Amino acid sequence: MARIAVVAGDGIGPEVVTEARKVIDAVLPGAEATEYDLGAARWHRTGEVLPDSVLAELAGHDAILLGAVGDPTVPPGVLERGLLLKLRFDFDQYVNLRPSRLWPGTTGPLANVKPGEVDLVVVREGTEGLYAGAGGTLHRGTPAEVATEESLNTRHGVERVIRDAFTRATRRERRKVTLVHKTNVLTHAGSLWARAFEAVAAEHPDVTTEYQHVDAAAMFLVTQPQRYDVVVTDNLFGDILTDIAAAVTGGIGLAASGSINPDGAYPSMFEPVHGSAPDIAGKGVADPVAAVLSAALLLDQLGHPDAAARVTAAVATELAGRTPGVPLRTAEVGDRLAGYAVA
Amino acid sequence: MARIAVVAGDGIGPEVVTEARKVIDAVLPGAEATEYDLGAARWHRTGEVLPDSVLAELAGHDAILLGAVGDPTVPPGVLERGLLLKLRFDFDQYVNLRPSRLWPGTTGPLANVKPGEVDLVVVREGTEGLYAGAGGTLHRGTPAEVATEESLNTRHGVERVIRDAFTRATRRERRKVTLVHKTNVLTHAGSLWARAFEAVAAEHPDVTTEYQHVDAAAMFLVTQPQRYDVVVTDNLFGDILTDIAAAVTGGIGLAASGSINPDGAYPSMFEPVHGSAPDIAGKGVADPVAAVLSAALLLDQLGHPDAAARVTAAVATELAGRTPGVPLRTAEVGDRLAGYAVA
Ligand SMILES: CC(C)[C@H](C(=O)O)[C@@H](O)C(=O)O
Ligand SMILES: CC(C)[C@H](C(=O)O)[C@@H](O)C(=O)O
Repeated sequence: MARIAVVAGDGIGPEVVTEARKVIDAVLPGAEATEYDLGAARWHRTGEVLPDSVLAELAGHDAILLGAVGDPTVPPGVLERGLLLKLRFDFDQYVNLRPSRLWPGTTGPLANVKPGEVDLVVVREGTEGLYAGAGGTLHRGTPAEVATEESLNTRHGVERVIRDAFTRATRRERRKVTLVHKTNVLTHAGSLWARAFEAVAAEHPDVTTEYQHVDAAAMFLVTQPQRYDVVVTDNLFGDILTDIAAAVTGGIGLAASGSINPDGAYPSMFEPVHGSAPDIAGKGVADPVAAVLSAALLLDQLGHPDAAARVTAAVATELAGRTPGVPLRTAEVGDRLAGYAVA
Repeated sequence: MARIAVVAGDGIGPEVVTEARKVIDAVLPGAEATEYDLGAARWHRTGEVLPDSVLAELAGHDAILLGAVGDPTVPPGVLERGLLLKLRFDFDQYVNLRPSRLWPGTTGPLANVKPGEVDLVVVREGTEGLYAGAGGTLHRGTPAEVATEESLNTRHGVERVIRDAFTRATRRERRKVTLVHKTNVLTHAGSLWARAFEAVAAEHPDVTTEYQHVDAAAMFLVTQPQRYDVVVTDNLFGDILTDIAAAVTGGIGLAASGSINPDGAYPSMFEPVHGSAPDIAGKGVADPVAAVLSAALLLDQLGHPDAAARVTAAVATELAGRTPGVPLRTAEVGDRLAGYAVA
């Protein structure tokens, strides 16, 4: 039976995770969940971010379900580098998966894009690039200060995530993969990405391919998001592009993500893209849909595609039935979703 | 009298530059223009990108007006690194200025944003960051390949562009500067940017400031572009954010830019953000508005704010008078703009 580590985290994290667990329990009765107390609250209380013992325990699970960590009182980088990125890197979660759909029943910000027309997934590299943590500072605090950040890219890391993107594309209707980079300026990394992309593409003659510079892709995500199917890109470009994709499909309130180790050597981690939203925390009004969609990605990754599909269909039913402007209650949404998923 | 070097370039470059010159001649009679043949066509013909002798001649001008360079047959990087970026770096054009307005009379893609509501300017750093060209490749073409790209940031370079952004903000109504970076991941460069920003902000108590991570800014540019006044950011983030800003204000067809050396030690360069658009080149249907707005930035930089304002007002008149769907003729638009500007 699936063993899931639950990191509810801060702010609205616990509220939305409760609903995600409700839905998982409904479609996969018997899944075991163990809670881990990590995030801003723990850091404030104990000074600890991610003790080695906890890391070791997490490694023994099949997957991690995460709500949200962080709040404005924690200095930038502490929880990001010490918790989120540490898990992505230590657990070799090289596929950062971020689907975006403009769901029927919702409204996006774009006048010319109708619900149902956007259905894309960004496969963001998760273990390399500018996130490697390579860089430094000289002459700090003086007029002579210089600060560097280095993007590290390996054929190993680039090829495996591109391969994952093509595999996903072959399971989709349009079978199209767009590589996004900035080959005209970042010529070294760009050339590596482009050559690896070409090599993997040659193994998939049934998949349509295209290349776009990151600035052009950012623009086309706003003007023609319908054109994308699978997008594969590096860690930082993926960070930016997925927030644009979320914005054009109704906001990060609905955006799910998975940090996946496809090899299964380590647990994969699933979390809503939204943060801890301290302003609405504790009020029971946070929308749990992004957390529930993240749970669907978790179920799919753990080998339960039918359960995942039922959860996704439940979300579709929920969203199609919403009346714009009517406030929602977190727990009621979770109850409805669990109900739809087993109906 | 102003001495302007004109690089018309490839594709629609010469067409739109002709109209920009028409407008400059109308508002600043007697401005001297010298044409330089650079771009894809010259490279194909002679193998030359930017001979030292031409670079030296360009340096003797007050400003450069550029149409567009490049076409799909030139390998990535050749004209970018060899011409555009070489000019930005050699002429120390550290302020890459990109205004975005949703002009009355135009339609943007966002359902909830009305013409007239967006008026922002991105001050993008132009001489540092990941554009420095620092990086390399080891074990190229083997499974062990590693490729790096390095972002170089100096206090000197960061502070001067932030200072420019604040100066611009004090001349605007809302007096607000947003710093965009990714301080939670790019901790070295992020800290340098954040500290320099704080220091310059302290000198400008009359300017409102805010900070956003680049992913959040990319999202808010789509959901609430109205909230921005002046945005200051690094070279690569600026590249991406300005294309989003262009997209939400009706596309790069209207987007102007200046690569500015505010110290006046070297000529500044002005160019539409759009490319050479080979598909419509030679047909006389390209919209010259972005080139004409770039000419307005040029006039402003050369100390002719009144002439610049007249050109900008002419564009406002032109756009307010357009009927959606009616095709335009490049030369007619230029004639009208020149006429409005002197009326
Ligand atoms: C919190 C931060 C480290 C993280 C990232 O940059 O990857 C977040 O923005 C995300 O996209 O998951
Ligand atoms: C052509 C390219 C080098 C350039 C850049 O990346 O700066 C372009 O995208 C721009 O924004 O002016």
